[in-house]
Amino acid sequence: MLFQEEVYANMFQALKEAELALDEGEVPIGAVVVWEDRIIGRGHNQTEKLKDPTAHAEILAITAASNYLKSKFLYNCELYVTVEPCIMCSGAILLSRIKRLFFGAFEPKFGACGSVHNVIESKEYNHKVEVFSGIYSKESENLLKGYFKKKRLHSIGY
Amino acid sequence: MLFQEEVYANMFQALKEAELALDEGEVPIGAVVVWEDRIIGRGHNQTEKLKDPTAHAEILAITAASNYLKSKFLYNCELYVTVEPCIMCSGAILLSRIKRLFFGAFEPKFGACGSVHNVIESKEYNHKVEVFSGIYSKESENLLKGYFKKKRLHSIGY
Repeated sequence: MLFQEEVYANMFQALKEAELALDEGEVPIGAVVVWEDRIIGRGHNQTEKLKDPTAHAEILAITAASNYLKSKFLYNCELYVTVEPCIMCSGAILLSRIKRLFFGAFEPKFGACGSVHNVIESKEYNHKVEVFSGIYSKESENLLKGYFKKKRLHSIGY
Repeated sequence: MLFQEEVYANMFQALKEAELALDEGEVPIGAVVVWEDRIIGRGHNQTEKLKDPTAHAEILAITAASNYLKSKFLYNCELYVTVEPCIMCSGAILLSRIKRLFFGAFEPKFGACGSVHNVIESKEYNHKVEVFSGIYSKESENLLKGYFKKKRLHSIGY
């Protein structure tokens, strides 16, 4: 699937966030929230630094964007994240009413947008998130692989 | 099922948190995290006040407890929450490695610990949360019902 130029430009910003995570010794995952063609929230995984299991890139980016819009609903917003969201983050995406989710690499161990679970398509929220995958997936995956190789770990388990 | 006295005492503290949420005009849900018989994290729903869809009672209590223990893993901790956790919070509970989850009322619309989904029993985390329900369920439910009656809403949809 081919995407518009902005999609790659936004995912590139999410990748830059992932690189920040890597620099800080965190599992390299990054996210940005876009509204009206502007980035209004950024986040990268900080579970180690903050000692907080909820400090995933998506949660931090959603909280930042909500703060920017002064709204708990992120209607008409798009979330770009380098890796397929987990259960927690998929739940947060549904709660936030984000319109579109773009992610890079699939996450075969914990992914909740098709890989292991598919909670992002849960019907009870009466809100459908449009999901697109595979944008800069190789780059996202290589960041993760490099991190785990360095850590001599063979699975994600973040 | 009958529980030990401490279980009721801890859930009573979660109910007090829920009452705080009610006083602040929030959907009344409260949570506490217990470690070695002490409450090390508290939280009540603050999605309106903080304008943040992720500010559920469980997330705030988990973050507080992680901060207290200076660890992203809450091994040997128990979470008490007045209402069955949603997808996001169930995911956070799995990520935190909480040992036991006690909740009050079932949540037929969004509950992810048996009602709508059962993600709390997801196998991929290689961590099993022991789940107990029905502790002070009437009290928890009445708080919610009172809130929604006042708001003239007929469903939860928080």
